[in-house]
Amino acid sequence: MYCHYRTSFLRGNPILSVIMVVRVLRLGHRPERDKRVTTHLILAARAFGASGAVYTGKRDEVLEETISDVVSEWGGSFDLRFSDSWRSEVREWGASGRVVHLTMYGLPLQDVVSEIRNCRSDLLVVVGGAKVPGEVYGLADWNVAVTSQPHSEVSALAVFLHELWEGRGLEGVYEGARLRVVPQARGKRVEDVSGGV
Amino acid sequence: MYCHYRTSFLRGNPILSVIMVVRVLRLGHRPERDKRVTTHLILAARAFGASGAVYTGKRDEVLEETISDVVSEWGGSFDLRFSDSWRSEVREWGASGRVVHLTMYGLPLQDVVSEIRNCRSDLLVVVGGAKVPGEVYGLADWNVAVTSQPHSEVSALAVFLHELWEGRGLEGVYEGARLRVVPQARGKRVEDVSGGV
Repeated sequence: MYCHYRTSFLRGNPILSVIMVVRVLRLGHRPERDKRVTTHLILAARAFGASGAVYTGKRDEVLEETISDVVSEWGGSFDLRFSDSWRSEVREWGASGRVVHLTMYGLPLQDVVSEIRNCRSDLLVVVGGAKVPGEVYGLADWNVAVTSQPHSEVSALAVFLHELWEGRGLEGVYEGARLRVVPQARGKRVEDVSGGV
Repeated sequence: MYCHYRTSFLRGNPILSVIMVVRVLRLGHRPERDKRVTTHLILAARAFGASGAVYTGKRDEVLEETISDVVSEWGGSFDLRFSDSWRSEVREWGASGRVVHLTMYGLPLQDVVSEIRNCRSDLLVVVGGAKVPGEVYGLADWNVAVTSQPHSEVSALAVFLHELWEGRGLEGVYEGARLRVVPQARGKRVEDVSGGV
């Protein structure tokens, strides 16, 4: 676990913020039903600044390969692994870090995100699958609602991380990338930077 | 098309912002592959403040019923309809409003969102499916990247709308709801408010 401060000038304002390690725990993955949604979820975790993810449910090597291929091409050190026990993941994490559970039934993001950001602890962000055990609500340090409306774990996770980092996820730089987008007003431009950035 | 101002106090600061009508255009839906992702996308559109959505590709009555059921239970006037021509949707909208296309190859969200917010026009937000025709990049007023990394149209749309509204989507109130969540630190509480709010 590490924890340090840095000054960001996003949105034109100096913001003094805590930088923390964030991992995502995806519960109850079902390859036959959830393949694309879980892929999107894990890619959103990576794109918005999580360091890695763990998933439970059923092992899915295609999912793992897809994520590994994205990391190889687009850089960074994001890792994904399977676990057969969400409970042991939460308990182990809880020994040194804090646990956030995203659920539409929790406290509003806008009311608790500052407290979470300022806790200075590394975070495990638990994201439900088909059926979330009631025990998760009790084990989490925060049950957080990204709106109290039904939408998607993908959008909930992205907006949570976006707010947690106060927008810095939009400007992530990924070391060791083979590919890099050069932003364009029209069309597509992708550079091969595998020879070194 | 309407356009008015209001003052929001989200994040503790008075923000003077334009309120605009936003609709989402989902391209190339394939029921057999995209069912859950498109459902998540449309629900995210609703939860983050879009007024409605149009989709192209293949007609999917199960999708339409799912969204209709959510609107009946959770309120608001969000509507979803099928179109057999994305081109005519974009052209018709372009006569009075502006068009945003979300793509990882576009200009960074953080560089263009103020300009889009301040344009004072209603917006059609185009979100790709499997294969986006190159013509879309030319017809859009803005091609916008929510990070230049691969993730998900669901997370891209949610973060785009969240930034567009400067966070107000988190506090949406949906008239005519049958169900309403009462936020809790632990557990779930849902009220039946069908007798009137």
